[in-house]
Amino acid sequence: MQIHNFNPGPSYISKFVIEKSIEGIKNYNNSGLSVLEISHRSSAFLNIIEQAKELSLALTGLDNKNYSALFLQGGASTQFLMTAINFLKTKAGYINTGSWSEKAIKEAKNIGTIEEISSSKDKNFSYIPETPTIDSSLDYLHLTSNNTIFGTQYNKFPATTIPLFADMSSDILCRELDYSKFDLVYAGAQKNLGIAGTTLVIIKNELLEKINTAIPSILSYKDHVEKDSLLNTPPVFPIYVSLLTLQWIKEQGGVKEIEKRNREKAELLYNEIDTNPLFNGFANEKDRSLMNVTFTLADEKHEQKFQSLCDEYNINGVKGHRSVGGYRASIYNALSIESVETLVDCMQKLKQSI
Amino acid sequence: MQIHNFNPGPSYISKFVIEKSIEGIKNYNNSGLSVLEISHRSSAFLNIIEQAKELSLALTGLDNKNYSALFLQGGASTQFLMTAINFLKTKAGYINTGSWSEKAIKEAKNIGTIEEISSSKDKNFSYIPETPTIDSSLDYLHLTSNNTIFGTQYNKFPATTIPLFADMSSDILCRELDYSKFDLVYAGAQKNLGIAGTTLVIIKNELLEKINTAIPSILSYKDHVEKDSLLNTPPVFPIYVSLLTLQWIKEQGGVKEIEKRNREKAELLYNEIDTNPLFNGFANEKDRSLMNVTFTLADEKHEQKFQSLCDEYNINGVKGHRSVGGYRASIYNALSIESVETLVDCMQKLKQSI
Repeated sequence: MQIHNFNPGPSYISKFVIEKSIEGIKNYNNSGLSVLEISHRSSAFLNIIEQAKELSLALTGLDNKNYSALFLQGGASTQFLMTAINFLKTKAGYINTGSWSEKAIKEAKNIGTIEEISSSKDKNFSYIPETPTIDSSLDYLHLTSNNTIFGTQYNKFPATTIPLFADMSSDILCRELDYSKFDLVYAGAQKNLGIAGTTLVIIKNELLEKINTAIPSILSYKDHVEKDSLLNTPPVFPIYVSLLTLQWIKEQGGVKEIEKRNREKAELLYNEIDTNPLFNGFANEKDRSLMNVTFTLADEKHEQKFQSLCDEYNINGVKGHRSVGGYRASIYNALSIESVETLVDCMQKLKQSI
Repeated sequence: MQIHNFNPGPSYISKFVIEKSIEGIKNYNNSGLSVLEISHRSSAFLNIIEQAKELSLALTGLDNKNYSALFLQGGASTQFLMTAINFLKTKAGYINTGSWSEKAIKEAKNIGTIEEISSSKDKNFSYIPETPTIDSSLDYLHLTSNNTIFGTQYNKFPATTIPLFADMSSDILCRELDYSKFDLVYAGAQKNLGIAGTTLVIIKNELLEKINTAIPSILSYKDHVEKDSLLNTPPVFPIYVSLLTLQWIKEQGGVKEIEKRNREKAELLYNEIDTNPLFNGFANEKDRSLMNVTFTLADEKHEQKFQSLCDEYNINGVKGHRSVGGYRASIYNALSIESVETLVDCMQKLKQSI
């Protein structure tokens, strides 16, 4: 039985990653030990984390002289706090494109003053707002590159002279991008980078000099960089799965090939939404996400019928978030085009059956 | 090839847990999904975390009306910060029994004023100090129940009227204990509770009323309890491994049987240290740990020979921490007596070969 897993994260894991994970749990690299029980101080693990950091930088096209990659715990939610506690001095700018931006703003407000630069709240976050000219005295500008709940995604990032921070939890490595425009990006692993339990942070080294002093060690980027992600015991297995995921991306042909597939998958699904009269897209067309496709039924009376069809087709996790209603198909990097084709078949079947 | 894994954590994982982990990764509960890809909002995962919380309370003998169990991220190091930021108002008491206590103290000092109640630093933390009468106006008393690096462990906990907090990372569930004496205990999972990546926190509910206001949400015990450990995406797989580990403990006969085995293992090893003239124990005899056995060579000239023998016997991870030198055998719950017998054989072999 093949399940088509459209969950917003944790979500579909490629066969390559599943199989290699199992191999590692049985006997890591013929060491006689399981990857679940190797010491985080062992050469086996140091090799895993070094490779994971190197590949993260290689796949984002960043060099390891000017940038540091960290694998931390605590998810994007901890990054909401860390970005602010490390860098918020006088005032920071935040763009509000949905629930996750709002959570970042709320946590930063506990630390200091923030300015909401722009927002798409007026239309239930169905679009990416224009960015006005940004006050160059702000400490940094924070944005969410892809909005998992609303299905919107930045195509063009704001030009700014102040440090640019992005929560890329739901779209990192989904497309070719000039990552050097950013000073700090972070992403919880459970969407495009593996399983829940670790968070990739890439930080420009020159930013480390600007970190606020006297902040708790466990929240300090400087302390984590100085200790090479080993300030405390790292989540060994989640980091191993992230390494396997990065290796999988590389073996597929890198981000270029991944982007090509992602565009094919997204076009196929958006085309069905646009041509099937039973469905409406939620997000503004030019801001549509490659990762989370949000849509509603034109007439809610077909809800039960569509749910039964989804069950019949083994389609899992397409229920929309309560803030939007309707449906959301999360079509992250690892999800195959066959799963998207199945969903499209299911949507066509609904039309035929009416 | 069987490796005898004496690492201080991450460390040995039982066959039961390894096998069940692999089953879950292949096909969780015949759902057609891997446990690595189930949503944290799915009934499958909610069932996992509910069971893990229930079993944590059942095995510590605490009731779920007065106590809450949480599975968080960030390790004990994050708890050093959270305990202080949630509960340090005027002044808190800390007992200093080694490096981990010192780290807890350092992080708390960033938040407020602390009083070092007692310390065993004068003798390189080789003993557990007596606790003087404690000022009842202190916000709480924090201690480390077992000192991984130095191999000491509390046998009798201080009697106090103020809330008692314990870092039990390296000895939780190793012995029967009256956990109701504590108001808050925490433990990184990678020693007795599974793999690195999740931390068990058990907190007395009445303490939640005392939490400092206006603290960051991700650091608030109250917010985590209110959201049932789902304030942010929890580390699904590490929590699953913790559940399997708790189930394993229960199936072995519970903490009572685990303690019996732990005492047998520890006695066997300490007896060899005490009777073999080539070795000296490090910790004060009455404060010896059931979990981390620290010892040195009476004459360092045998170092290479002992290392070769350890290699020959497939003994892994017995190198002592640099603060103590010598050797440390971590003999956590899951480690079998056969591994301890092997280490004892190896130590006897050294004596015979000299």
